Amino acid sequence: MRLGYLGPKGTFSYEACKKYDKNAEFIQYRTITETIDGLDKLDVDEVIVPIENSIQGGVTETIDKLINSNNIFIKKEIILNISHNLMANKKYNLDEIKEIYSHPQALAQCRGFIEENLKDAIINEVSSTALSAKEVKNKDNVACIANLSCSTEYNLEIIRENIQDNNLNKTKFWILSKQKNISGNKMSMIFATKHIPGALYNVLGIFNNNKINLTKIESRPAKTSFGEYYFLVDLEVNKNIQKAISELENECQFLKILGIY
Amino acid sequence: MRLGYLGPKGTFSYEACKKYDKNAEFIQYRTITETIDGLDKLDVDEVIVPIENSIQGGVTETIDKLINSNNIFIKKEIILNISHNLMANKKYNLDEIKEIYSHPQALAQCRGFIEENLKDAIINEVSSTALSAKEVKNKDNVACIANLSCSTEYNLEIIRENIQDNNLNKTKFWILSKQKNISGNKMSMIFATKHIPGALYNVLGIFNNNKINLTKIESRPAKTSFGEYYFLVDLEVNKNIQKAISELENECQFLKILGIY
Repeated sequence: MRLGYLGPKGTFSYEACKKYDKNAEFIQYRTITETIDGLDKLDVDEVIVPIENSIQGGVTETIDKLINSNNIFIKKEIILNISHNLMANKKYNLDEIKEIYSHPQALAQCRGFIEENLKDAIINEVSSTALSAKEVKNKDNVACIANLSCSTEYNLEIIRENIQDNNLNKTKFWILSKQKNISGNKMSMIFATKHIPGALYNVLGIFNNNKINLTKIESRPAKTSFGEYYFLVDLEVNKNIQKAISELENECQFLKILGIY
Repeated sequence: MRLGYLGPKGTFSYEACKKYDKNAEFIQYRTITETIDGLDKLDVDEVIVPIENSIQGGVTETIDKLINSNNIFIKKEIILNISHNLMANKKYNLDEIKEIYSHPQALAQCRGFIEENLKDAIINEVSSTALSAKEVKNKDNVACIANLSCSTEYNLEIIRENIQDNNLNKTKFWILSKQKNISGNKMSMIFATKHIPGALYNVLGIFNNNKINLTKIESRPAKTSFGEYYFLVDLEVNKNIQKAISELENECQFLKILGIY
Protein backbone atom coordinates (compact mmCIF):
# COMPACT_ATOMS: atom_id res chain seq x y z
CA MET A 1 0.00 0.00 0.00
CA ARG A 2 1.36 3.41 -1.04
CA LEU A 3 0.60 6.15 1.51
CA GLY A 4 1.16 9.84 0.69
CA TYR A 5 2.07 12.42 3.37
CA LEU A 6 3.43 15.94 3.85
CA GLY A 7 7.19 15.45 4.08
CA PRO A 8 10.05 15.53 4.80
CA LYS A 9 10.71 12.63 7.18
CA GLY A 10 10.22 13.69 10.78
CA THR A 11 7.06 15.82 10.32
CA PHE A 12 4.05 15.10 12.51
CA SER A 13 2.39 13.71 9.37
CA TYR A 14 5.26 11.23 9.15
CA GLU A 15 4.64 10.23 12.78
CA ALA A 16 0.97 9.75 11.93
CA CYS A 17 1.91 7.50 8.97
CA LYS A 18 3.93 5.25 11.26
CA LYS A 19 1.09 5.09 13.77
CA TYR A 20 -1.43 4.22 11.03
CA ASP A 21 0.47 1.55 9.08
CA LYS A 22 4.19 1.12 9.56
CA ASN A 23 4.37 -1.43 6.72
CA ALA A 24 3.07 0.95 4.07
CA GLU A 25 5.35 2.54 1.50
CA PHE A 26 5.52 6.22 2.49
CA ILE A 27 5.48 8.75 -0.37
CA GLN A 28 6.56 12.33 0.46
CA TYR A 29 4.88 15.46 -0.91
CA ARG A 30 5.85 19.12 -0.52
CA THR A 31 2.41 20.55 0.31
CA ILE A 32 -0.97 19.31 1.55
CA THR A 33 -2.53 20.23 -1.80
CA GLU A 34 0.01 18.11 -3.68
CA THR A 35 -0.50 15.26 -1.20
CA ILE A 36 -4.25 15.12 -1.88
CA ASP A 37 -3.66 15.54 -5.64
CA GLY A 38 -1.58 12.32 -5.41
CA LEU A 39 -4.88 10.41 -5.08
CA ASP A 40 -6.31 11.80 -8.33
CA LYS A 41 -3.07 11.06 -10.16
CA LEU A 42 -3.22 7.48 -8.82
CA ASP A 43 0.34 7.91 -7.48
CA VAL A 44 -0.79 6.61 -4.08
CA ASP A 45 -3.60 4.44 -2.67
CA GLU A 46 -4.25 6.57 0.40
CA VAL A 47 -3.00 9.83 1.90
CA ILE A 48 -2.78 11.11 5.45
CA VAL A 49 -3.41 14.81 6.06
CA PRO A 50 -3.76 16.96 9.20
CA ILE A 51 -7.30 18.33 9.54
CA GLU A 52 -7.40 19.99 12.95
CA ASN A 53 -5.19 20.88 15.88
CA SER A 54 -6.88 21.16 19.28
CA ILE A 55 -5.23 24.56 19.85
CA GLN A 56 -4.67 26.18 16.48
CA GLY A 57 -7.94 25.01 14.95
CA GLY A 58 -8.68 23.74 11.47
CA VAL A 59 -5.87 23.20 8.98
CA THR A 60 -7.07 25.62 6.36
CA GLU A 61 -5.14 24.20 3.41
CA THR A 62 -6.74 20.77 3.98
CA ILE A 63 -10.27 22.12 4.39
CA ASP A 64 -10.02 24.37 1.32
CA LYS A 65 -8.66 21.52 -0.79
CA LEU A 66 -11.52 19.23 0.30
CA ILE A 67 -14.11 21.92 -0.56
CA ASN A 68 -12.68 21.97 -4.09
CA SER A 69 -12.09 18.21 -4.57
CA ASN A 70 -14.47 15.53 -5.78
CA ASN A 71 -14.71 11.85 -4.91
CA ILE A 72 -12.21 11.97 -2.07
CA PHE A 73 -13.46 10.17 1.04
CA ILE A 74 -12.44 9.82 4.67
CA LYS A 75 -11.47 6.28 5.61
CA LYS A 76 -10.39 6.81 9.21
CA GLU A 77 -9.25 9.44 11.69
CA ILE A 78 -6.05 9.26 13.72
CA ILE A 79 -5.23 11.48 16.69
CA LEU A 80 -1.63 12.24 17.61
CA ASN A 81 -0.39 13.87 20.82
CA ILE A 82 1.81 16.79 19.85
CA SER A 83 4.92 17.59 21.83
CA HIS A 84 7.30 20.34 20.87
CA ASN A 85 10.95 20.25 21.87
CA LEU A 86 13.80 22.72 21.70
CA MET A 87 16.84 21.16 20.02
CA ALA A 88 20.18 22.28 18.61
CA ASN A 89 23.59 20.95 17.57
CA LYS A 90 24.85 21.36 21.18
CA LYS A 91 23.14 21.36 24.56
CA TYR A 92 23.18 25.19 24.89
CA ASN A 93 21.88 27.17 27.86
CA LEU A 94 18.74 29.09 26.95
CA ASP A 95 20.56 32.45 27.02
CA GLU A 96 23.08 31.21 24.44
CA ILE A 97 20.37 30.73 21.81
CA LYS A 98 20.30 33.65 19.38
CA GLU A 99 17.90 32.34 16.74
CA ILE A 100 15.01 29.87 16.55
CA TYR A 101 13.64 28.06 13.50
CA SER A 102 10.28 26.31 13.31
CA HIS A 103 6.92 26.04 11.57
CA PRO A 104 4.55 28.99 12.30
CA GLN A 105 2.02 26.69 14.07
CA ALA A 106 4.70 25.20 16.33
CA LEU A 107 6.00 28.69 17.13
CA ALA A 108 2.43 29.79 17.94
CA GLN A 109 1.96 26.76 20.20
CA CYS A 110 5.14 27.61 22.14
CA ARG A 111 4.54 31.38 22.26
CA GLY A 112 4.46 31.50 26.08
CA PHE A 113 7.74 29.57 26.45
CA ILE A 114 9.46 31.76 23.85
CA GLU A 115 8.27 35.02 25.42
CA GLU A 116 9.44 33.85 28.84
CA ASN A 117 12.77 32.26 27.92
CA LEU A 118 13.87 33.36 24.46
CA LYS A 119 12.50 36.88 24.24
CA ASP A 120 15.44 38.31 22.27
CA ALA A 121 15.99 35.43 19.88
CA ILE A 122 15.36 36.07 16.18
CA ILE A 123 12.46 33.93 14.97
CA ASN A 124 12.57 32.26 11.55
CA GLU A 125 9.47 30.60 10.14
CA VAL A 126 9.96 27.63 7.83
CA SER A 127 7.47 25.33 6.15
CA SER A 128 7.77 22.29 8.47
CA THR A 129 9.20 21.40 11.88
CA ALA A 130 11.36 18.74 10.21
CA LEU A 131 12.83 21.34 7.87
CA SER A 132 13.68 23.50 10.89
CA ALA A 133 15.63 20.58 12.37
CA LYS A 134 17.55 20.15 9.11
CA GLU A 135 18.17 23.91 8.97
CA VAL A 136 19.85 24.24 12.40
CA LYS A 137 21.99 21.11 12.18
CA ASN A 138 25.10 23.03 11.14
CA LYS A 139 24.40 26.34 12.84
CA ASP A 140 25.85 27.33 16.21
CA ASN A 141 23.67 28.99 18.86
CA VAL A 142 20.60 28.34 16.74
CA ALA A 143 17.76 26.08 17.91
CA CYS A 144 14.74 24.50 16.29
CA ILE A 145 11.35 23.49 17.71
CA ALA A 146 10.38 20.06 16.43
CA ASN A 147 9.25 16.61 17.50
CA LEU A 148 11.59 14.21 19.27
CA SER A 149 12.11 11.91 16.30
CA CYS A 150 13.96 14.77 14.58
CA SER A 151 16.73 14.56 17.17
CA THR A 152 17.63 11.09 15.86
CA GLU A 153 16.91 11.93 12.23
CA TYR A 154 19.14 15.06 12.22
CA ASN A 155 21.51 14.26 15.09
CA LEU A 156 20.44 17.07 17.44
CA GLU A 157 20.69 17.51 21.21
CA ILE A 158 17.50 18.02 23.18
CA ILE A 159 17.65 21.25 25.21
CA ARG A 160 14.10 21.25 26.58
CA GLU A 161 11.24 18.77 26.13
CA ASN A 162 7.53 19.58 25.96
CA ILE A 163 7.75 23.35 25.65
CA GLN A 164 4.23 23.74 24.24
CA ASP A 165 2.03 26.17 26.23
CA ASN A 166 -0.88 23.79 26.47
CA ASN A 167 -0.41 20.11 27.23
CA LEU A 168 -3.74 19.19 25.66
CA ASN A 169 -2.15 19.57 22.27
CA LYS A 170 -3.41 17.01 19.78
CA THR A 171 -3.65 16.92 16.01
CA LYS A 172 -6.31 15.00 14.18
CA PHE A 173 -5.36 13.45 10.83
CA TRP A 174 -7.63 11.97 8.19
CA ILE A 175 -6.77 9.00 6.00
CA LEU A 176 -8.28 9.83 2.59
CA SER A 177 -8.85 7.62 -0.43
CA LYS A 178 -10.89 7.43 -3.65
CA GLN A 179 -12.89 4.50 -2.19
CA LYS A 180 -16.10 5.33 -0.34
CA ASN A 181 -16.44 3.72 3.07
CA ILE A 182 -19.99 2.55 3.70
CA SER A 183 -20.11 1.86 7.42
CA GLY A 184 -19.22 3.70 10.61
CA ASN A 185 -20.78 5.83 13.36
CA LYS A 186 -19.28 9.14 12.36
CA MET A 187 -19.94 11.34 9.35
CA SER A 188 -18.21 14.53 8.18
CA MET A 189 -19.68 16.99 5.71
CA ILE A 190 -19.18 20.51 4.40
CA PHE A 191 -22.14 22.80 3.73
CA ALA A 192 -22.81 26.42 2.78
CA THR A 193 -26.07 28.08 3.74
CA LYS A 194 -28.25 30.28 1.57
CA HIS A 195 -27.73 34.04 1.99
CA ILE A 196 -30.84 34.74 4.01
CA PRO A 197 -31.24 35.78 7.65
CA GLY A 198 -31.44 32.78 9.98
CA ALA A 199 -30.00 30.39 7.36
CA LEU A 200 -27.54 28.70 9.73
CA TYR A 201 -30.24 28.40 12.39
CA ASN A 202 -32.51 26.65 9.86
CA VAL A 203 -29.78 24.19 8.86
CA LEU A 204 -28.92 23.37 12.47
CA GLY A 205 -32.65 22.82 13.00
CA ILE A 206 -32.53 19.91 10.55
CA PHE A 207 -29.91 18.15 12.69
CA ASN A 208 -31.84 18.99 15.86
CA ASN A 209 -35.19 17.75 14.57
CA ASN A 210 -33.57 14.51 13.42
CA LYS A 211 -31.84 14.08 16.82
CA ILE A 212 -28.43 14.09 15.13
CA ASN A 213 -25.68 15.25 17.48
CA LEU A 214 -22.98 17.49 15.98
CA THR A 215 -19.63 16.82 17.61
CA LYS A 216 -17.92 19.64 15.73
CA ILE A 217 -18.79 22.73 13.68
CA GLU A 218 -16.15 24.91 12.15
CA SER A 219 -16.37 27.82 9.72
CA ARG A 220 -14.20 28.64 6.68
CA PRO A 221 -14.62 31.82 4.60
CA ALA A 222 -16.22 31.26 1.20
CA LYS A 223 -13.62 33.66 -0.33
CA THR A 224 -16.31 35.70 -2.00
CA SER A 225 -17.07 38.44 0.50
CA PHE A 226 -17.03 38.88 4.26
CA GLY A 227 -19.74 36.99 6.11
CA GLU A 228 -20.07 34.05 3.69
CA TYR A 229 -18.83 30.74 5.04
CA TYR A 230 -18.56 27.04 4.51
CA PHE A 231 -19.17 24.95 7.62
CA LEU A 232 -17.33 21.70 8.30
CA VAL A 233 -19.29 19.46 10.67
CA ASP A 234 -18.72 16.06 12.28
CA LEU A 235 -21.83 14.22 13.45
CA GLU A 236 -22.98 10.99 15.04
CA VAL A 237 -24.87 8.91 12.50
CA ASN A 238 -28.35 7.67 13.49
CA LYS A 239 -31.31 6.09 11.64
CA ASN A 240 -32.54 9.50 10.43
CA ILE A 241 -29.36 10.31 8.53
CA GLN A 242 -30.70 9.77 4.98
CA LYS A 243 -33.80 11.85 5.74
CA ALA A 244 -31.60 14.61 7.20
CA ILE A 245 -29.35 14.60 4.11
CA SER A 246 -32.37 15.03 1.82
CA GLU A 247 -33.54 17.97 3.90
CA LEU A 248 -30.04 19.48 3.89
CA GLU A 249 -29.91 19.21 0.09
CA ASN A 250 -32.98 21.46 -0.06
CA GLU A 251 -31.83 23.91 2.57
CA CYS A 252 -28.13 24.34 1.67
CA GLN A 253 -26.63 25.92 -1.40
CA PHE A 254 -23.62 23.60 -1.19
CA LEU A 255 -23.36 20.16 0.41
CA LYS A 256 -20.52 17.66 0.24
CA ILE A 257 -20.51 14.42 2.25
CA LEU A 258 -16.90 13.56 3.07
CA GLY A 259 -17.68 10.06 4.26
CA ILE A 260 -18.85 7.71 6.98
CA TYR A 261 -16.06 6.16 9.04
CA MET B 1 -3.00 60.35 19.43
CA ARG B 2 -0.66 57.36 19.76
CA LEU B 3 -1.68 54.41 17.57
CA GLY B 4 -0.08 50.95 17.96
CA TYR B 5 0.32 48.52 15.05
CA LEU B 6 2.12 45.35 13.95
CA GLY B 7 5.34 46.62 12.40
CA PRO B 8 7.67 47.11 10.67
CA LYS B 9 6.79 50.00 8.32
CA GLY B 10 5.25 48.71 5.10
CA THR B 11 3.03 45.97 6.61
CA PHE B 12 -0.66 45.94 5.71
CA SER B 13 -1.31 47.06 9.30
CA TYR B 14 0.85 50.12 8.55
CA GLU B 15 -1.26 50.81 5.43
CA ALA B 16 -4.38 50.53 7.59
CA CYS B 17 -2.92 53.05 10.10
CA LYS B 18 -2.41 55.58 7.31
CA LYS B 19 -5.94 55.02 6.03
CA TYR B 20 -7.40 55.44 9.54
CA ASP B 21 -5.54 58.54 10.76
CA LYS B 22 -2.45 59.73 8.97
CA ASN B 23 -1.79 62.38 11.63
CA ALA B 24 -1.51 59.89 14.49
CA GLU B 25 1.85 58.94 15.98
CA PHE B 26 2.42 55.33 14.84
CA ILE B 27 3.99 52.98 17.41
CA GLN B 28 5.42 49.67 16.11
CA TYR B 29 5.07 46.32 17.89
CA ARG B 30 6.57 42.93 17.02
CA THR B 31 3.46 40.77 17.43
CA ILE B 32 -0.31 41.22 17.57
CA THR B 33 -0.31 40.11 21.22
CA GLU B 34 2.23 42.82 22.14
CA THR B 35 0.25 45.37 20.12
CA ILE B 36 -2.93 44.74 22.13
CA ASP B 37 -0.92 44.63 25.39
CA GLY B 38 0.18 48.19 24.56
CA LEU B 39 -3.33 49.35 25.53
CA ASP B 40 -3.15 47.81 29.01
CA LYS B 41 0.31 49.30 29.56
CA LEU B 42 -1.08 52.70 28.50
CA ASP B 43 1.74 52.99 25.95
CA VAL B 44 -0.79 53.88 23.25
CA ASP B 45 -4.32 55.34 23.05
CA GLU B 46 -5.58 53.00 20.36
CA VAL B 47 -4.29 50.03 18.37
CA ILE B 48 -5.12 48.69 14.94
CA VAL B 49 -5.14 44.90 14.45
CA PRO B 50 -6.15 42.61 11.58
CA ILE B 51 -9.18 40.51 12.50
CA GLU B 52 -10.17 38.71 9.29
CA ASN B 53 -9.04 38.20 5.72
CA SER B 54 -11.74 37.43 3.16
CA ILE B 55 -9.75 34.43 1.89
CA GLN B 56 -7.65 33.11 4.76
CA GLY B 57 -10.31 33.63 7.41
CA GLY B 58 -9.99 34.86 10.97
CA VAL B 59 -6.66 36.07 12.30
CA THR B 60 -6.28 33.56 15.08
CA GLU B 61 -3.75 35.48 17.17
CA THR B 62 -6.13 38.47 17.37
CA ILE B 63 -9.20 36.37 18.22
CA ASP B 64 -7.37 34.35 20.89
CA LYS B 65 -5.97 37.51 22.48
CA LEU B 66 -9.44 39.10 22.60
CA ILE B 67 -10.91 35.96 24.24
CA ASN B 68 -8.31 36.36 27.00
CA SER B 69 -8.40 40.18 27.38
CA ASN B 70 -10.68 42.33 29.48
CA ASN B 71 -11.97 45.85 28.91
CA ILE B 72 -10.73 46.15 25.35
CA PHE B 73 -13.38 47.51 22.98
CA ILE B 74 -13.86 47.92 19.25
CA LYS B 75 -14.09 51.54 18.16
CA LYS B 76 -14.29 51.10 14.40
CA GLU B 77 -13.62 48.68 11.57
CA ILE B 78 -11.49 49.44 8.51
CA ILE B 79 -11.37 47.34 5.36
CA LEU B 80 -8.28 47.32 3.16
CA ASN B 81 -7.98 45.87 -0.34
CA ILE B 82 -5.00 43.53 -0.37
CA SER B 83 -2.74 43.33 -3.39
CA HIS B 84 0.36 41.19 -3.49
CA ASN B 85 3.28 42.00 -5.75
CA LEU B 86 6.46 40.20 -6.74
CA MET B 87 9.49 42.44 -6.22
CA ALA B 88 13.28 42.10 -6.17
CA ASN B 89 16.48 44.17 -6.41
CA LYS B 90 16.36 43.90 -10.24
CA LYS B 91 13.60 43.39 -12.76
CA TYR B 92 14.32 39.65 -13.23
CA ASN B 93 12.49 37.32 -15.60
CA LEU B 94 10.38 34.81 -13.69
CA ASP B 95 12.70 31.92 -14.57
CA GLU B 96 15.65 33.77 -13.03
CA ILE B 97 14.08 33.77 -9.57
CA LYS B 98 15.52 31.00 -7.41
CA GLU B 99 14.02 31.89 -4.03
CA ILE B 100 10.95 33.69 -2.68
CA TYR B 101 10.43 35.29 0.74
CA SER B 102 7.09 36.28 2.22
CA HIS B 103 4.63 35.90 5.08
CA PRO B 104 2.83 32.51 5.14
CA GLN B 105 -0.60 34.13 4.51
CA ALA B 106 0.70 36.07 1.49
CA LEU B 107 2.33 32.90 0.13
CA ALA B 108 -0.96 31.05 0.62
CA GLN B 109 -2.86 33.79 -1.17
CA CYS B 110 -0.51 33.58 -4.18
CA ARG B 111 -0.31 29.76 -4.24
CA GLY B 112 -1.74 29.49 -7.77
CA PHE B 113 0.68 32.05 -9.23
CA ILE B 114 3.66 30.37 -7.52
CA GLU B 115 2.69 26.88 -8.69
CA GLU B 116 2.26 28.12 -12.24
CA ASN B 117 5.27 30.43 -12.54
CA LEU B 118 7.77 29.71 -9.77
CA LYS B 119 7.35 25.99 -9.20
CA ASP B 120 11.03 25.30 -8.51
CA ALA B 121 11.80 28.34 -6.36
CA ILE B 122 12.70 27.73 -2.71
CA ILE B 123 10.06 29.25 -0.44
CA ASN B 124 11.06 31.04 2.76
CA GLU B 125 8.42 32.07 5.28
CA VAL B 126 9.09 35.17 7.37
CA SER B 127 6.96 36.96 9.95
CA SER B 128 5.72 39.89 7.79
CA THR B 129 5.58 40.92 4.15
CA ALA B 130 7.60 44.05 5.01
CA LEU B 131 10.34 41.91 6.54
CA SER B 132 10.46 39.86 3.32
CA ALA B 133 11.08 43.07 1.35
CA LYS B 134 13.91 44.02 3.70
CA GLU B 135 15.32 40.49 3.46
CA VAL B 136 15.66 40.38 -0.36
CA LYS B 137 17.02 43.90 -0.82
CA ASN B 138 20.64 42.73 -1.06
CA LYS B 139 20.08 39.27 -2.53
CA ASP B 140 20.38 38.47 -6.24
CA ASN B 141 17.77 36.28 -7.96
CA VAL B 142 15.62 36.35 -4.85
CA ALA B 143 12.15 37.92 -4.81
CA CYS B 144 9.65 38.87 -2.12
CA ILE B 145 5.87 39.09 -2.16
CA ALA B 146 4.73 42.29 -0.49
CA ASN B 147 2.57 45.37 -0.93
CA LEU B 148 3.53 48.15 -3.34
CA SER B 149 4.60 50.60 -0.65
CA CYS B 150 7.52 48.29 0.16
CA SER B 151 9.03 48.97 -3.26
CA THR B 152 9.58 52.61 -2.23
CA GLU B 153 10.45 51.78 1.38
CA TYR B 154 13.12 49.20 0.45
CA ASN B 155 14.07 50.37 -3.07
CA LEU B 156 12.83 47.30 -4.98
CA GLU B 157 11.78 46.78 -8.60
CA ILE B 158 8.27 45.51 -9.27
CA ILE B 159 8.37 42.30 -11.35
CA ARG B 160 4.64 41.49 -11.35
CA GLU B 161 1.70 43.34 -9.77
CA ASN B 162 -1.45 41.76 -8.29
CA ILE B 163 -0.33 38.15 -8.23
CA GLN B 164 -2.93 37.06 -5.66
CA ASP B 165 -5.13 34.16 -6.79
CA ASN B 166 -8.37 35.85 -5.85
CA ASN B 167 -9.01 39.50 -6.55
CA LEU B 168 -11.66 39.74 -3.86
CA ASN B 169 -8.90 39.86 -1.28
CA LYS B 170 -9.67 42.20 1.59
CA THR B 171 -8.53 42.39 5.19
CA LYS B 172 -10.68 43.77 7.96
CA PHE B 173 -8.93 45.63 10.80
CA TRP B 174 -10.33 46.69 14.13
CA ILE B 175 -9.37 49.87 15.97
CA LEU B 176 -9.34 48.87 19.66
CA SER B 177 -9.22 51.05 22.76
CA LYS B 178 -9.93 50.93 26.51
CA GLN B 179 -12.91 53.29 25.99
CA LYS B 180 -16.31 51.73 25.42
CA ASN B 181 -18.21 53.10 22.43
CA ILE B 182 -21.91 53.45 23.19
CA SER B 183 -23.53 53.94 19.81
CA GLY B 184 -23.50 52.23 16.43
CA ASN B 185 -25.44 49.69 14.37
CA LYS B 186 -23.03 46.82 14.61
CA MET B 187 -22.05 44.66 17.58
CA SER B 188 -19.39 41.96 17.90
CA MET B 189 -19.28 39.35 20.64
CA ILE B 190 -17.62 36.06 21.53
CA PHE B 191 -19.57 33.24 23.15
CA ALA B 192 -19.06 29.59 24.12
CA THR B 193 -22.00 27.24 24.35
CA LYS B 194 -22.72 24.72 27.09
CA HIS B 195 -21.61 21.15 26.35
CA ILE B 196 -25.02 19.72 25.58
CA PRO B 197 -26.48 18.47 22.29
CA GLY B 198 -28.15 21.27 20.32
CA ALA B 199 -26.39 24.00 22.34
CA LEU B 200 -25.40 26.09 19.31
CA TYR B 201 -28.87 25.68 17.83
CA ASN B 202 -30.38 27.02 21.08
CA VAL B 203 -28.07 30.04 21.12
CA LEU B 204 -28.78 30.88 17.47
CA GLY B 205 -32.47 30.59 18.37
CA ILE B 206 -32.08 33.57 20.72
CA PHE B 207 -30.87 35.75 17.84
CA ASN B 208 -33.57 34.39 15.57
CA ASN B 209 -36.42 34.94 18.04
CA ASN B 210 -35.22 38.50 18.66
CA LYS B 211 -34.99 39.15 14.88
CA ILE B 212 -31.29 39.94 15.20
CA ASN B 213 -29.41 39.30 11.97
CA LEU B 214 -25.95 37.74 12.28
CA THR B 215 -23.63 39.03 9.55
CA LYS B 216 -20.79 36.72 10.56
CA ILE B 217 -20.20 33.61 12.66
CA GLU B 218 -16.77 32.11 13.03
CA SER B 219 -15.47 29.30 15.25
CA ARG B 220 -12.23 29.09 17.26
CA PRO B 221 -11.17 25.98 19.20
CA ALA B 222 -11.48 26.33 22.97
CA LYS B 223 -8.07 24.59 23.35
CA THR B 224 -9.49 22.09 25.81
CA SER B 225 -10.51 19.15 23.65
CA PHE B 226 -11.74 18.59 20.11
CA GLY B 227 -15.27 19.79 19.45
CA GLU B 228 -15.31 22.68 21.95
CA TYR B 229 -15.37 26.11 20.38
CA TYR B 230 -15.71 29.82 20.92
CA PHE B 231 -17.85 31.60 18.35
CA LEU B 232 -17.11 35.13 17.18
CA VAL B 233 -20.22 36.82 15.78
CA ASP B 234 -21.02 40.19 14.22
CA LEU B 235 -24.65 41.28 14.33
CA GLU B 236 -26.96 44.12 13.40
CA VAL B 237 -28.19 45.86 16.55
CA ASN B 238 -31.96 46.29 16.96
CA LYS B 239 -34.30 47.28 19.82
CA ASN B 240 -34.27 43.73 21.26
CA ILE B 241 -30.52 43.70 21.83
CA GLN B 242 -30.56 44.10 25.63
CA LYS B 243 -33.18 41.37 25.99
CA ALA B 244 -31.15 39.08 23.72
CA ILE B 245 -27.97 39.70 25.75
CA SER B 246 -29.80 38.73 28.98
CA GLU B 247 -31.00 35.52 27.35
CA LEU B 248 -27.49 34.79 26.02
CA GLU B 249 -26.05 35.25 29.51
CA ASN B 250 -28.29 32.40 30.70
CA GLU B 251 -27.69 30.13 27.72
CA CYS B 252 -23.93 30.54 27.19
CA GLN B 253 -21.10 29.43 29.42
CA PHE B 254 -18.94 32.33 28.22
CA LEU B 255 -20.02 35.68 26.78
CA LYS B 256 -17.91 38.74 25.99
CA ILE B 257 -19.32 41.81 24.27
CA LEU B 258 -16.53 43.40 22.21
CA GLY B 259 -18.41 46.60 21.52
CA ILE B 260 -20.95 48.53 19.51
CA TYR B 261 -19.53 50.54 16.62
